[in-house]
Amino acid sequence: MTVIEKLEKVREYMKKDNVSVYIVTSSDYHDSEYAGEYFETRKYLSGFTGSAGTLIIGTEKAALYTDGRYFIQAEKELSGSGIELMRMGMESTPSITEYIEGICKKGTFIAADTRTVSAKDGETYEQVQKNAGCVGLLNRDYAGAIWTDRPLMSASPAFELALSYAGESRADKLCRIRQFMKESKADGHILTTLDDIAWTLNIRGNDILYNPMVLSYLYLDDKQGFLFTDAGKFSKELTGQLKEDGIEIKPYDEFEEFIRSIMPKTSVLYDKEKINYSIYTAMGNTITRIEKTNPEIMMKAVKNHIEAENEKKAHIKDGVAVTKFIYWLKKEVKKRKLNEMDAAMYLEKCRKEQEGYIEPSFSTISAYNENAAMMHYNPYVNGPADLKPEGILLVDSGGQYYEGTTDVTRTIALGPVKDEIKTQYTAVLRGMLNLSNARFLKGCIGMNLDILARGPLWEMGLDYRCGTGHGVGYLLGVHEAPNGFRWRKVPEREDGCVLLPGMITTNEPGVYVEGSHGIRIENELLTVLDETNEYGDFLRFETLTCVPVEMDLVDLEQMSPKEINLLKIYQKKVYDTISSYLENDEKEWLLAICCNI
Amino acid sequence: MTVIEKLEKVREYMKKDNVSVYIVTSSDYHDSEYAGEYFETRKYLSGFTGSAGTLIIGTEKAALYTDGRYFIQAEKELSGSGIELMRMGMESTPSITEYIEGICKKGTFIAADTRTVSAKDGETYEQVQKNAGCVGLLNRDYAGAIWTDRPLMSASPAFELALSYAGESRADKLCRIRQFMKESKADGHILTTLDDIAWTLNIRGNDILYNPMVLSYLYLDDKQGFLFTDAGKFSKELTGQLKEDGIEIKPYDEFEEFIRSIMPKTSVLYDKEKINYSIYTAMGNTITRIEKTNPEIMMKAVKNHIEAENEKKAHIKDGVAVTKFIYWLKKEVKKRKLNEMDAAMYLEKCRKEQEGYIEPSFSTISAYNENAAMMHYNPYVNGPADLKPEGILLVDSGGQYYEGTTDVTRTIALGPVKDEIKTQYTAVLRGMLNLSNARFLKGCIGMNLDILARGPLWEMGLDYRCGTGHGVGYLLGVHEAPNGFRWRKVPEREDGCVLLPGMITTNEPGVYVEGSHGIRIENELLTVLDETNEYGDFLRFETLTCVPVEMDLVDLEQMSPKEINLLKIYQKKVYDTISSYLENDEKEWLLAICCNI
Repeated sequence: MTVIEKLEKVREYMKKDNVSVYIVTSSDYHDSEYAGEYFETRKYLSGFTGSAGTLIIGTEKAALYTDGRYFIQAEKELSGSGIELMRMGMESTPSITEYIEGICKKGTFIAADTRTVSAKDGETYEQVQKNAGCVGLLNRDYAGAIWTDRPLMSASPAFELALSYAGESRADKLCRIRQFMKESKADGHILTTLDDIAWTLNIRGNDILYNPMVLSYLYLDDKQGFLFTDAGKFSKELTGQLKEDGIEIKPYDEFEEFIRSIMPKTSVLYDKEKINYSIYTAMGNTITRIEKTNPEIMMKAVKNHIEAENEKKAHIKDGVAVTKFIYWLKKEVKKRKLNEMDAAMYLEKCRKEQEGYIEPSFSTISAYNENAAMMHYNPYVNGPADLKPEGILLVDSGGQYYEGTTDVTRTIALGPVKDEIKTQYTAVLRGMLNLSNARFLKGCIGMNLDILARGPLWEMGLDYRCGTGHGVGYLLGVHEAPNGFRWRKVPEREDGCVLLPGMITTNEPGVYVEGSHGIRIENELLTVLDETNEYGDFLRFETLTCVPVEMDLVDLEQMSPKEINLLKIYQKKVYDTISSYLENDEKEWLLAICCNI
Repeated sequence: MTVIEKLEKVREYMKKDNVSVYIVTSSDYHDSEYAGEYFETRKYLSGFTGSAGTLIIGTEKAALYTDGRYFIQAEKELSGSGIELMRMGMESTPSITEYIEGICKKGTFIAADTRTVSAKDGETYEQVQKNAGCVGLLNRDYAGAIWTDRPLMSASPAFELALSYAGESRADKLCRIRQFMKESKADGHILTTLDDIAWTLNIRGNDILYNPMVLSYLYLDDKQGFLFTDAGKFSKELTGQLKEDGIEIKPYDEFEEFIRSIMPKTSVLYDKEKINYSIYTAMGNTITRIEKTNPEIMMKAVKNHIEAENEKKAHIKDGVAVTKFIYWLKKEVKKRKLNEMDAAMYLEKCRKEQEGYIEPSFSTISAYNENAAMMHYNPYVNGPADLKPEGILLVDSGGQYYEGTTDVTRTIALGPVKDEIKTQYTAVLRGMLNLSNARFLKGCIGMNLDILARGPLWEMGLDYRCGTGHGVGYLLGVHEAPNGFRWRKVPEREDGCVLLPGMITTNEPGVYVEGSHGIRIENELLTVLDETNEYGDFLRFETLTCVPVEMDLVDLEQMSPKEINLLKIYQKKVYDTISSYLENDEKEWLLAICCNI
């Protein structure tokens, strides 16, 4: 079926239901960072394959909204479809609501699969249809109705994350959550975010790309809980273990009905920022709504002692893999033809050799020279670039291990580079080292510390147009709220919380020069308590990442004695930590770059 | 009259008016930092002379609320008065509203001079009386009624600040304010804050201690304005000049009546955070209320080019005065008996020798050794301490000049000191220098930069329990919103705005060790534009203060080469800027400490 034919079919359904506008999002039902193939209705109907975009289908015309990362790609992919490309962020582009208001008709419905619409957006659409004189917002999955070869929802098995990995039992976590519910005067608690459910129940799965989570909803009351999921994913043993902790498995698609059946006057705690509109409306008006940020977000951000110790192990394995890869790349690029994808694939091979490695924590960015200036470079768009024994390759990658999630970026010299690159690399390195070395009172947020990383670039009149770092999950999402480093508040990023011992945050300053090159160095930092005295709790960071800094790009002249000392300490720690896992030639090379500064 | 007798008189009035609780504050009608003697009703009625405190008089008992700075002093001063001391911030202390609720009686009134009560507190008291079953909140000045020898309201003459000082004409300022009114759809604008009025009209006076302002209210509409003040303070010439700009003088005490007479449906712009409760209620319900932060706050914070250039001149004069003082002090303390007050008085003498000096910008803090550990040390409480040729004297002082307002702190070695003091002084100095040297993108607030000053102390497990700096006015308040440096948000301080070119902010990190010593170094920083490029506007600071750093307290070993260089540059600039105004012996000494690092 062509896109034109698909839209015609959708319009037949629309006509039948008296619908004048149909909205198709890119989301699953859980506000996940990555949605499974089953949920790719926007891609199916429009042909546009980018990760972000909303399709609006009217009775006569249709439009696809996407952001600057995808303008070129979307133009190509939408060509001939009759769908107009709406470039978000351009002044001439009307907002989605303005567009909808322009094409919807009085006395008709607006429709969407409201399970894929956030509560907030749903309220906006409700308002739009009211303003426009429509008669309501319908919940319809027309894409599902016409998508005959729709992929099945993932049926990957779930598994229990052993206590030796999770560090806290399911019962203890439930007890803490119930304590919060009690303090919030909540009888029940709806949890729809997959990482929060996975953390709470110490379960993992494989339903979401890069994120080892299980498609599910959870409802907890003060004694028991109901996990709405595909029971077939759970072994008898795991089902029994959940039951022991008062968690009963129910069918995934019965969740909404369950929510509708909650007894009147029950007080229910949920996170309006996270819940989809379908559930939000299913709650109805007879219950008492308690809207709060999910308590699990903060609980899982503060890693316990066992998680933190495991993360260190994961980072040793990951460090060995990435270091082996760097050694191989710098050697091989001088000998034979390699491209960006070859590099990424070899890195994946190195990770796969590590015990306990599960999968990448996100799609590896392997970007050569000017390609690295694009922060979200995708080699599939124009094909991978060939690597030469000159210039720099930026590699941003990470792994999911039983011992945790990693995220590391190294910018690697493949041969001679311009002086400008060394100067900028050194400034980025100085920022990265200075932030890693921060000591600060408890109460600080990322905004207090960001300048330590960004300062050396600001001194040179440079900047990177993004935050300095994000929280990282434990065998969960590589981007995890609520901690981060950022100099200006961006409310929707939800990364401005007070930094607490146990939180893990990336430290990744960079320089991006369009058409020329991109530089980024990324380590992960564990916040730890350093000293408590009359002034409060002084915190500092412990660097988790064990991958050498690219000495071929460092200009020591630019660095203060203190910064050089920080570099020496870091490189020596990398050598001491991972050298015993390396072959002799790798070890020799590492010794030379780590212990000879 | 004893305090007991005064309270009895007040209670007679209370009985007559059916009042069960009378509230007495320390404020004038304008939310000024310092209130004139006329407004010292709380001091008159209670005998407590501290700057902060609220007196609550019930029919049988009375209480005075004050904060930790004044517990000891208040206990002494209230002794025998029958007034109970309520220690604010202690867990066992009920809140003011709780106390009022406890002693007010159903069917009676609560009373206060509501001109001395903020709109916010007024609303709180309204709620308290409603909750307690009282019949209303009365506006009564009982203190005034019984205070036979009450000082007159200040009648100091007002003067015009010439364009060569103000840098922008009254007409241009009014034009900008009216533009803001227009954008806010306001027909009228009430201005009650004395610094905003002084800035707007380019007038100054002498009605408020340390702050050269004129007791007045201002009402602006789109064409004219009414300045409610004592016409006797204004020369014929100045009155005529105001008239030319459409400003008519009306009696100070007619303002409320004027507000009451505003035509219904007039839309009036005012700042609820600044206005007193009496005016707030006088506005009534027929006008359209537009509550916004006074636009004058931001306008006057951003100094124009002429103000900035003048400030530099003021700081040269101030630098000469303070430097002469330091030289004198270090020499004289070895020869003869001096105490903290002698030092402060000599400093004032040095300032008075400067052309264009008007008065101190606040009460000089001259605190020796352990006295300096108290941030708000007042030598009058226990008498000034004698100075010895050893240890350190902290002197925090400032001047009001026609060319602007200054605020500077130096910690001066009077002889040998402990190593600990040198170590801490050097850390404070490093912080001060690093913040002064910041380069940052426009959009930064104080919170982004604070760690540059605080970091060296945090590294040593030290902290100072206050912000790093505050905005400074131009021949106005030495503490001026909305700019400042602070690591944690304190909403009531209103100092978290984006730093803009033209703003002046102090940079004053410190260390305070109870019972031992206090260290602070304070310079003033002017924000300037450094470079505009694709990333935005890069800003930096220009240091205004021209007073040498105390080299006898610096340990260069602790400083990085970059920090030493910043110190060298600063000291040399001080020498180059002020040495020509010094005597030969002063000059020689300055050369030795400024150009020999």
